[in-house]
Amino acid sequence: MMRIDCLQYANWSEEIFEQLREGCVDAIHVTIAYHENFRETVLNFEQWNRWFEKYDHLIMKGQWASDIDRARETGRTAVFFGFQNPSSMEDDIGLVEILHTLGARFMQLSYNNQSLLAAGCYEAEDAGITRMGRQVIKEMNRVGLVVDMSHSGDRSTIEATEISERPIAITHANPYDWFPALRNKKDNVIRAVTQNGGMIGFSLYPHHLKDKSNCTLEEFCGMIARTADRYGIGNIGIGSDLCQNQPDSVVEWMRVGRWTKRIDYGEGSASDAGFPPMPHWFKDNRDFGNLEKGLRDVGMNADEIKAVMGGNWYRFFEKNFVPQGAQS
Amino acid sequence: MMRIDCLQYANWSEEIFEQLREGCVDAIHVTIAYHENFRETVLNFEQWNRWFEKYDHLIMKGQWASDIDRARETGRTAVFFGFQNPSSMEDDIGLVEILHTLGARFMQLSYNNQSLLAAGCYEAEDAGITRMGRQVIKEMNRVGLVVDMSHSGDRSTIEATEISERPIAITHANPYDWFPALRNKKDNVIRAVTQNGGMIGFSLYPHHLKDKSNCTLEEFCGMIARTADRYGIGNIGIGSDLCQNQPDSVVEWMRVGRWTKRIDYGEGSASDAGFPPMPHWFKDNRDFGNLEKGLRDVGMNADEIKAVMGGNWYRFFEKNFVPQGAQS
Repeated sequence: MMRIDCLQYANWSEEIFEQLREGCVDAIHVTIAYHENFRETVLNFEQWNRWFEKYDHLIMKGQWASDIDRARETGRTAVFFGFQNPSSMEDDIGLVEILHTLGARFMQLSYNNQSLLAAGCYEAEDAGITRMGRQVIKEMNRVGLVVDMSHSGDRSTIEATEISERPIAITHANPYDWFPALRNKKDNVIRAVTQNGGMIGFSLYPHHLKDKSNCTLEEFCGMIARTADRYGIGNIGIGSDLCQNQPDSVVEWMRVGRWTKRIDYGEGSASDAGFPPMPHWFKDNRDFGNLEKGLRDVGMNADEIKAVMGGNWYRFFEKNFVPQGAQS
Repeated sequence: MMRIDCLQYANWSEEIFEQLREGCVDAIHVTIAYHENFRETVLNFEQWNRWFEKYDHLIMKGQWASDIDRARETGRTAVFFGFQNPSSMEDDIGLVEILHTLGARFMQLSYNNQSLLAAGCYEAEDAGITRMGRQVIKEMNRVGLVVDMSHSGDRSTIEATEISERPIAITHANPYDWFPALRNKKDNVIRAVTQNGGMIGFSLYPHHLKDKSNCTLEEFCGMIARTADRYGIGNIGIGSDLCQNQPDSVVEWMRVGRWTKRIDYGEGSASDAGFPPMPHWFKDNRDFGNLEKGLRDVGMNADEIKAVMGGNWYRFFEKNFVPQGAQS
């Protein structure tokens, strides 16, 4: 069974790359920039190039769905790149194609705050997709860089589905109906995304889970089964948001970047500022088997489990990473 | 007959792209940076992306030798990128792979002056390849970025042939024995480059020609025939150094960049500061037929002419643009 996780941001190391292999994870989408500007993002691409060179028996750069086949044939994990904020492209639309050429395949139009392109989910007001945002979505469509609205506001997200000529994604979030976290997505948002062929990846980040770190596997998998019934089995996958081994300074960088001098706790709080502990049944990349078992236990059949665990993301990658007009 | 020109730096326009097609030029290597830093070089890649999008019936991005086949099949010119100075990679060896990923295929280790990597041909002293230069050559070898020593000093060039594990190039220069310009290459330099499978591309820039702008076609082609006899028919090609339609401000940028506040005339002089007029038989890309005729008239046979006009560069591209270990 193919396993694809469409969002991770670990503190990467040989140990984690080995765990990816132990967990038989064929492909991951990793965040390589939050608030980095273009030059800083390039340094992150460089760091990955060094890891690909050094650990080429464990990982390889992923650019196309076919790279996942190659990864499986050679016993490696294909690593696809994305950004959680459009800061990497600065104010320069020409960088969309440059970043795609370097390997970027997902870009969030905003991260919690208003960006040049869209509103973030923490803004009091969401005025929708900006003038520049409309141009950038068109350019992302052209080159094959997927619009990701995981951290965007509802109106911006729904408008993005209308403006985009290709399916978009919410790589990591859960239904708001299941657990009303600010980052989880309301029915009309999930519907707009999935109706256009888009995808939602289920998050295992405790702030997105009912009962947070104490969420049970059964509860999580039951939510997946109900979401499949409601929005279609073909438009859902995993986007674990696994931030393994990251020091708390990193969650602070994610939340605060350089946009404020004051602390911002995001989904946390003053008394719960760091990374929350993961559920005991999903601590790292070796635990994808637990998810499969959990899905079986809530009554999903083998084909449905295959779709959720990787098949759907594979087909989405296949269609949406290539330049417009080159789709198979 | 395949036509490849391994160095041009025109003031690009639809008119020149059309002339490339009229002249049946299948591939060109274009300079996209002299003194630009990384971010400025990326802006130049962006400009070319826009041209590829707008003029996709005339030109296409060239990355591999096979792109030349695709260009021929679709009646277009494949455009390969290079730098005449390593300023694009700044002091960051990680940018070598980044720039190759973006499409760079040639990089000069120096341009007239001392660089971080090698001495330029205008320095009074040439101390050879630097500590960083040795590391960068190795990295260029690994990723498939060709070392170009057109504007480097003799000692640096010969050392580069010794350090490089893959063939290197002098993309645009002529033999010093034929015309003793500072930029033309002495016998021991050409021998070192070609003995290792490297290439020399013959320049039509008047400062590199006997009698400069008045050089005759016969004189130029006779020089090519003699060079073939001396160093082998398999290691020579064209690198015209055509700088069509460039204003004189551009030759000043090439020579002066930001390294001096005083004017430097390079190969020119105070009384002859601008671009010199091209020979009447090679004014633009429509004149490659004249070169073929000239080579026939000095007695070269059809196979030899094919080798010089493009066949040799094609084989060189095929071998040297792919990552080390992936060579066919």
